Amino acid sequence: MRPLMVIYPGNESIGRRLAEALGADIASLTMRQFPDEETYVRLATLCQGRDVIVVATLDRPNPKVLPLLFIVDLAHELRAHRVILVAPYLAHMRQDTRFNPGEAVASRSFAKLLSGGIDALVTIDPHLHRYEALAELYSVPAQVIHAAPLMAEWIQAEIEQPLVVGPDSESEQWVADVARRASAPYVVLEKTRRGDRDVEVSVPDVECWRNRQPVLVDDIISTARTMIETVRHLKRTDLPAPICVGVHAVFADDAHRALRSAGAERVVTTNTIAHESNEIDVSDAVAAAVERM
Amino acid sequence: MRPLMVIYPGNESIGRRLAEALGADIASLTMRQFPDEETYVRLATLCQGRDVIVVATLDRPNPKVLPLLFIVDLAHELRAHRVILVAPYLAHMRQDTRFNPGEAVASRSFAKLLSGGIDALVTIDPHLHRYEALAELYSVPAQVIHAAPLMAEWIQAEIEQPLVVGPDSESEQWVADVARRASAPYVVLEKTRRGDRDVEVSVPDVECWRNRQPVLVDDIISTARTMIETVRHLKRTDLPAPICVGVHAVFADDAHRALRSAGAERVVTTNTIAHESNEIDVSDAVAAAVERM
Repeated sequence: MRPLMVIYPGNESIGRRLAEALGADIASLTMRQFPDEETYVRLATLCQGRDVIVVATLDRPNPKVLPLLFIVDLAHELRAHRVILVAPYLAHMRQDTRFNPGEAVASRSFAKLLSGGIDALVTIDPHLHRYEALAELYSVPAQVIHAAPLMAEWIQAEIEQPLVVGPDSESEQWVADVARRASAPYVVLEKTRRGDRDVEVSVPDVECWRNRQPVLVDDIISTARTMIETVRHLKRTDLPAPICVGVHAVFADDAHRALRSAGAERVVTTNTIAHESNEIDVSDAVAAAVERM
Repeated sequence: MRPLMVIYPGNESIGRRLAEALGADIASLTMRQFPDEETYVRLATLCQGRDVIVVATLDRPNPKVLPLLFIVDLAHELRAHRVILVAPYLAHMRQDTRFNPGEAVASRSFAKLLSGGIDALVTIDPHLHRYEALAELYSVPAQVIHAAPLMAEWIQAEIEQPLVVGPDSESEQWVADVARRASAPYVVLEKTRRGDRDVEVSVPDVECWRNRQPVLVDDIISTARTMIETVRHLKRTDLPAPICVGVHAVFADDAHRALRSAGAERVVTTNTIAHESNEIDVSDAVAAAVERM
């Protein structure tokens, strides 16, 4: 039986591409607010015996999670064979330890909550910093897709003479991988974080690369403070205005506009979170991961 | 050990009264949004071995539930003896059956979700229509508090010669109870619901009560359509402008203003949902229920 794709509102673009790549039917999902702001959910397509794939990216998770859990529960009640969550962006991965007594380790609670409902998870580059693998958190089978090859492919196709610039030493391995795949040199910055929005960045000597086009890469662009700082530093060099490439287009508040204003020549992201900067499509890679399950 | 009260933002008024009635300490709870709109939660008061009472009313539940579950999980991790949720208003109780194939029965999913985290539940007049008792839904011990005695007390103290008016025949038993306790006569209306916001109401002959002050009572005031319709009908009689008394001040959109504009002399609610119309305090009754647990 063909799998059934349930597209959570806001995921239409990636959802439709994914359905096509998988040869899946798209479910008729109705989701609307009652006047009292409770959510009505209806799945008017037969789920029985089918793999139900729910596509829901999880940035800004608070208002999304309850209706998502209703959908997951409903698919089970309607006797889906398995319910597979495709969450191109997985929330709460950065709250991965207790820095002060009494702090919630939300990554753990969030994983427990989702694992209680779904049968499997597919996601793209979750922020694994203090965890080795998603399996430490998620008790259901999880497939992680890496955007590095797709970013490298985009850089190689679009940018002449790129110099890949990574945000910090933690990400060096990942940045080196992107650069190697794009056949480009790379440098990484030193980053000191003082708060949610306060980041200091030092840029290594890049004068020897003055004929190169700097391409800043990062996994999550949220406040964009790191990229903005780096763009400002690079503008003081003889290098061309940098291009910024991110996996997840979170863009808190006016971060996208701020990054453009700071002097980014171009801002490019993958379509894990729908945004005007999306230029790199992850849906074929997601489809392959779903098929492996 | 004294119980510990965790007051979810928005529940300060009822939470403080409740803490006083129970002789509970108020926990130091920090809840704030990261720039990416994920929620940071910290409980900086020792929970170990204590009954932790979380006060969180659950109208407009979508954005509230995920942080609430983080708090509940955190209290368990910090070795609370029990985590008791006081949800003065319990959401999703009206989605209690499948009217069309494929509809989510959200009351069930919601109950399963909460029951998976908390050890006990206290709530006020949940909308039990197709369920006999909360125990059909919630797998944890649940105490239900009835607001009828408090409403009756308020009516008796504040209104001379009241005539209690109930919204529909379904609620007759409840309305009769309020009226009896207030030593007042009552009538109930015939209500036909055509949609979320479209309600037709017929008012029985009330001319024989023309010296009485009509007091409309209902459990939930959401769109207020029923009350507004009734107020309009009553204005065509010789009775004084009606007073409206509700348990749960949901007030969708501008429902409160619309009800006042339609001609309600006064709108009064209990403090299960913080609102300017709150005049009836349920906290002593809630404290008594918590103490019974």
